[in-house]
Amino acid sequence: MSQQVYNFGAGPAMLPVPVMERIREEFLDFQGMGVSVIEVSHRAKQFEKVLLDAQESFRQLTNLPDNYKILFVHGGARMQFSALPMNLAGRSASKKCLYVETGNFAKLANKDAKGYGDIQVIASSADTKYDRLPAITPEMIDQDAAYLHITTNNTLYGSRYSQFPDAGNVPLIADQTSEILSRVVDYSKFGCIYAGLQKNLGPSGTAIVVIREDLLGHASAETPVLLNYEQCAKDNSLTNTANTFAREDQ
Amino acid sequence: MSQQVYNFGAGPAMLPVPVMERIREEFLDFQGMGVSVIEVSHRAKQFEKVLLDAQESFRQLTNLPDNYKILFVHGGARMQFSALPMNLAGRSASKKCLYVETGNFAKLANKDAKGYGDIQVIASSADTKYDRLPAITPEMIDQDAAYLHITTNNTLYGSRYSQFPDAGNVPLIADQTSEILSRVVDYSKFGCIYAGLQKNLGPSGTAIVVIREDLLGHASAETPVLLNYEQCAKDNSLTNTANTFAREDQ
Repeated sequence: MSQQVYNFGAGPAMLPVPVMERIREEFLDFQGMGVSVIEVSHRAKQFEKVLLDAQESFRQLTNLPDNYKILFVHGGARMQFSALPMNLAGRSASKKCLYVETGNFAKLANKDAKGYGDIQVIASSADTKYDRLPAITPEMIDQDAAYLHITTNNTLYGSRYSQFPDAGNVPLIADQTSEILSRVVDYSKFGCIYAGLQKNLGPSGTAIVVIREDLLGHASAETPVLLNYEQCAKDNSLTNTANTFAREDQ
Repeated sequence: MSQQVYNFGAGPAMLPVPVMERIREEFLDFQGMGVSVIEVSHRAKQFEKVLLDAQESFRQLTNLPDNYKILFVHGGARMQFSALPMNLAGRSASKKCLYVETGNFAKLANKDAKGYGDIQVIASSADTKYDRLPAITPEMIDQDAAYLHITTNNTLYGSRYSQFPDAGNVPLIADQTSEILSRVVDYSKFGCIYAGLQKNLGPSGTAIVVIREDLLGHASAETPVLLNYEQCAKDNSLTNTANTFAREDQ
């Protein structure tokens, strides 16, 4: 290559050179199949192994408890800003969804959620231009809420949680896009974490959602099938095209 | 490569070898940037040129009229099965959305649409196992409907429209996934066509939506921002991450 550039920008980030080189090497002929991995069916056994290996690696690296599902979903982290309340607001009769606003993306997260629940920003540092993480005390967290949403790292503002809020029995949900797999996190403290892949894990356009099993099954009726986390878990992220549940109807 | 395999399957299809070779060649260093195209920001001028060139090429190849927008969206064609009625049912007070059912995907298209409009299957060949395209006569098409949806090619069943139905003033919408750019089509006869890229145009997970401008602006209030075609057109398919309209709020 002409020169290697170190990309430390706030957008899509670098992938490790050995990973990129291996992708290039296999690009026209994946595992002797004579075609690229981007040309094979997502139901091919070779692709299934890619998917299962990625999930298993993530599970081992994070010491993820068995009662969490790992989903790969469309649209990057921002699509989840809407999908989260569609999937989770219904777990509380009040449909209260609590948000901590610590930057541009934290603000978008609660803005894009509006209309799918009773969206409440319980703390914000917007008035000091997101120069700090506002303190969260237990009495700020309505225990009837469907979830509490935080953004664990706010690249543009240089803030990051060293200790996560204790939300009691309310599931803690975290957008971890800009730091996922860059530090050890005890995922058993979270109901759900999610991240766009483009910072630390892969190309843009896809996101990972790690969700505790008891949080599945609360999607509102108007949730599109491809944004429904329970369906995604049932199909192990392979809902696209005619899937098993569709064929059963035939 | 070990051997070139000809993939004529119903799933993701082959891309031309010269295209694949060029991707491989540029994979670690896109246009001398020192990084891969999958590592650069979607707001970089080099990536913007990729986007604009793809749109311009499609426009020229299809002789697309100026009053149509070309959108690149998430989730493949199946995500559009829900997004279409979210965006378009509202253009008719009755919210009637008419479907012709000519195969598995045509069936999924109307199934995934349920809940976002008054979904009506006006003709189906399901009872003869999709062995034909049912005849569509003008009196079958309620002129108050928001749109009429067809699937132009049904690979598994070997059926393809040689002449498209005349829907009068009702916009004709077509899932063209399995044949897009494989034959000359007069897009001025359509309100909207869409296709997953994975058959003829590129990798899985993305779709192209070509939509007449007057059909934008009818999305229901609960349409997620990343499924809103009007927003996508405004942002020229770059809504992801903090975009202009978000920054205006700060």
